[in-house]
Amino acid sequence: MKYISSRDNALYKQLLRLASGRPSRDAANLVLLEGLNLCQAWLQHHGAPVRAVFDAERLDRGGPLRALAEAVGDAASIACEPRLARGLSQVESGQGIYFMVEAPRPDLPEYIDHNCLWLDRIQDPGNVGTLLRTAAAAGIRHAYLSTGTCAAWSPKVLRSAQGAHFAMTLHEQVDLAAAHERLTVPLAATLLEGGEPLFDVPLPERCAWLMGNEGQGASPELAALAQLRVYVPQAPYVESLNVAAAAAICLFEQRRRWLGRAVQAQ
Amino acid sequence: MKYISSRDNALYKQLLRLASGRPSRDAANLVLLEGLNLCQAWLQHHGAPVRAVFDAERLDRGGPLRALAEAVGDAASIACEPRLARGLSQVESGQGIYFMVEAPRPDLPEYIDHNCLWLDRIQDPGNVGTLLRTAAAAGIRHAYLSTGTCAAWSPKVLRSAQGAHFAMTLHEQVDLAAAHERLTVPLAATLLEGGEPLFDVPLPERCAWLMGNEGQGASPELAALAQLRVYVPQAPYVESLNVAAAAAICLFEQRRRWLGRAVQAQ
Repeated sequence: MKYISSRDNALYKQLLRLASGRPSRDAANLVLLEGLNLCQAWLQHHGAPVRAVFDAERLDRGGPLRALAEAVGDAASIACEPRLARGLSQVESGQGIYFMVEAPRPDLPEYIDHNCLWLDRIQDPGNVGTLLRTAAAAGIRHAYLSTGTCAAWSPKVLRSAQGAHFAMTLHEQVDLAAAHERLTVPLAATLLEGGEPLFDVPLPERCAWLMGNEGQGASPELAALAQLRVYVPQAPYVESLNVAAAAAICLFEQRRRWLGRAVQAQ
Repeated sequence: MKYISSRDNALYKQLLRLASGRPSRDAANLVLLEGLNLCQAWLQHHGAPVRAVFDAERLDRGGPLRALAEAVGDAASIACEPRLARGLSQVESGQGIYFMVEAPRPDLPEYIDHNCLWLDRIQDPGNVGTLLRTAAAAGIRHAYLSTGTCAAWSPKVLRSAQGAHFAMTLHEQVDLAAAHERLTVPLAATLLEGGEPLFDVPLPERCAWLMGNEGQGASPELAALAQLRVYVPQAPYVESLNVAAAAAICLFEQRRRWLGRAVQAQ
């Protein structure tokens, strides 16, 4: 197994760059996963990483890190001096394990006929992560992220999505207006103003839920394409809901109605 | 109006400390509000601040900063060299206006008979802010924050709550188990395991919604006091919902049902 002991090491510099959420300099779309849960999930769903990076001291202690190293194999594994390994961590008490992987870039399906999440220029990584986590919990398996939405496989999004990346297929850098031509289910826009109250409008079992930018909402061009235009009925005199909270209410209102029908049909 | 041009100024040091979210060193529970919206809302709801701090250059340009300075008066207003004013900012493009205020410490009501939010050791400021914002949007006017929940009037919580602090009465450092004795509405716990599915259980018009720590949920002692124990029905094989997303679903499910009844009663 290779060992890194200097911060001048070229690979270490690349790891540092990825750890801070900056894109890789090559075309490979490399990203860095941190922590046991994410690395184990990657191994299970996508196989071996490009590189597995271990805190050398913690690796020597055996346990789950050793098991991961054995699963990955020596050729792709790298031990790292503890202070260098800690330098890659984005959390307070890291676990000393990182995977450098190529983020999946699935092809757009010819027809988008599933219940799905459309994110239009969502800029806060915590919001994107929470949106994905909430969508996965609501049973949604596909998300379409516009150009201008922050990168789904960045460390902050991964952290707040809590594994949703492995329960969903994530399409990034999507031209949503063009993708609309592939859509065979209704586009449902959540609006700050106008539209119909969520609780009174019929909701289809499958639609594309369009969630827009934190400040401006969805772009007018996209919102104009929506067959369904809803708002969440709120108390007067307060600011609008956070986009992830609004999405939670919409997605679980849909789930509630269709869960109910599934139960009644039993 | 006093003018600060040195970072060694004692008041400036205190402002810096508050800007970083650290508690004030005296007993006054001082906090720093940043930005036009928050400062204007404070003035409207609570009157003059202890100190109003302005970027001197922006103040000279007139506009809303000048109007605020006139409303506050010269005695409590301080102009600050632009680079020092920028040093207090927690956002990328600050507006050059800060209020140092004494955070409200309302007395606990003798009886807690209103629909309300109970937060048990919620540690992420973004979560606390989103929870308050969502509760305000759901029409909830009272929140009870346990010891161990992060400070409600900290800069990060203020930022993500988007004004909810002025639509709600916030009780902090509350011993929730003791406060339970004042409760005359049901305590409703949202659980990760056990309990009944939210969508199937009768929900009262008013209850105390107990939301627990991000990792561990509500403390077992508190959860044991709950008359109502619910979970949000989720897709299998995914991590649980973020606490703010779970709260959004619960609070708006209650709102949906009682909004509906109010409409029917008209």
